[in-house]
Amino acid sequence: MTGREGGAPLTPIDPSPVVILVRPQLAENIGAAARAMANGGLFHLRLVAPRDGWPQERAWRSASGADRILDAATTYATLAEAVADLHRVFATCPRPRHIIKPVLTARGAAAELRAIAARGLAAGILFGAERAGLDSDEMAFADTLVRYPLNPAFSSLNLAQAVMVMAYEWWLAADETPPRRLVTHETRIATKGELENFLRHLIAELDACGFLDNLPKRPGMVRNIRHFFQRGEVTEQELRTLHGIITELARGRRTRGRD
Amino acid sequence: MTGREGGAPLTPIDPSPVVILVRPQLAENIGAAARAMANGGLFHLRLVAPRDGWPQERAWRSASGADRILDAATTYATLAEAVADLHRVFATCPRPRHIIKPVLTARGAAAELRAIAARGLAAGILFGAERAGLDSDEMAFADTLVRYPLNPAFSSLNLAQAVMVMAYEWWLAADETPPRRLVTHETRIATKGELENFLRHLIAELDACGFLDNLPKRPGMVRNIRHFFQRGEVTEQELRTLHGIITELARGRRTRGRD
Repeated sequence: MTGREGGAPLTPIDPSPVVILVRPQLAENIGAAARAMANGGLFHLRLVAPRDGWPQERAWRSASGADRILDAATTYATLAEAVADLHRVFATCPRPRHIIKPVLTARGAAAELRAIAARGLAAGILFGAERAGLDSDEMAFADTLVRYPLNPAFSSLNLAQAVMVMAYEWWLAADETPPRRLVTHETRIATKGELENFLRHLIAELDACGFLDNLPKRPGMVRNIRHFFQRGEVTEQELRTLHGIITELARGRRTRGRD
Repeated sequence: MTGREGGAPLTPIDPSPVVILVRPQLAENIGAAARAMANGGLFHLRLVAPRDGWPQERAWRSASGADRILDAATTYATLAEAVADLHRVFATCPRPRHIIKPVLTARGAAAELRAIAARGLAAGILFGAERAGLDSDEMAFADTLVRYPLNPAFSSLNLAQAVMVMAYEWWLAADETPPRRLVTHETRIATKGELENFLRHLIAELDACGFLDNLPKRPGMVRNIRHFFQRGEVTEQELRTLHGIITELARGRRTRGRD
């Protein structure tokens, strides 16, 4: 066992569920799983009987900086020891059968894990070995199963990808980012008055060059131009550029006109 | 260029968006991205100026069977060529700024991509190079930005993981799996009558062995036992096992009683 003592109860400071990799084979996958955990705000890693032993330097190399998670990871000889201090155990499995147990989607599991954490209970999520996943005896340690809705025609999921989806949903379950917004950092949206000022500039030059000479069609053409520039928010920087474009294009025309 | 011709319009048969990896560095990541695409039902892969050339055998080795996606992948010298036949281009980027553009979460983007596909339009999603992501010029090819809500303190996302999250959300946007259900394959839930039959068996043996001799407490104890066995659905196989347990435990007691 490395890092902190395996049997120590989880501190209430970070209530995120423990990720438990059961018989992981490749150290690279353990590191990639740690990186995915960090992406989604999961920080507790436990390893049950890692095939090539532990620690393994290759794990740190593939963790891209998620070192603290690996440094604090604990190893166990058996799954029973790894879950002994937990109140709830979820198991990710591709095809549960012959058992009566709640099966949640990753999203449903994330919501339930948040609720479990809010009650001050410690939860773990089991991920099976790369090739075969969890066996039947290992699944029997879980009270809840998790099955991701994914393409049934290609369900071979990389271990770190499986951790990524769960970590992503864990983070999302407490995230309030609106599904759609506009980036406006460090730039100012132009007012409608500034936009109108530009449109007057544009239309004056279009009148001057004869583009709008067809009087019956002029109102419709002006309206189309107005619609185009109203399509989204315009920044005052973009308006300055557009003013410059019109001015320079008109200057070129006048210069040629003088030839 | 390998596989089908890059400029050919997408067939309406599969309306899933094109995944466009811009200047990808490692062939392993291209293969892992293809595997993640297959997991989420994305099948069109384009590569813009892959650093080490294309095709690369290492990609097939890390794709775990998602070969058809790699076989059909097309390469382009420039991003402009890679998006030329598309109607909409989304770009995944960690920190958009100085620009006015819609920014969607992965989930919001998936919903919009489904709507775009339903209108018969072809869409692409740009993923930048491993280290630096998309540069400013590349982002200017996109009409819509995608930013995943993830841990801002650790936002270094592996390329294939970034593809996985988007592929997962694409699949989920058309998925109707309820967030919670029970596994019941190939096993039968016991009726309440069968459960009651077992409870009568259990209580009779508990009376026989004297466990329920405290008459004032007996009703509460019986109620607690009943509550425990009502906690979830029980299968008839489990009931058979429980009947056997009670019978055998009682037999042991009787045998000892005879000594």
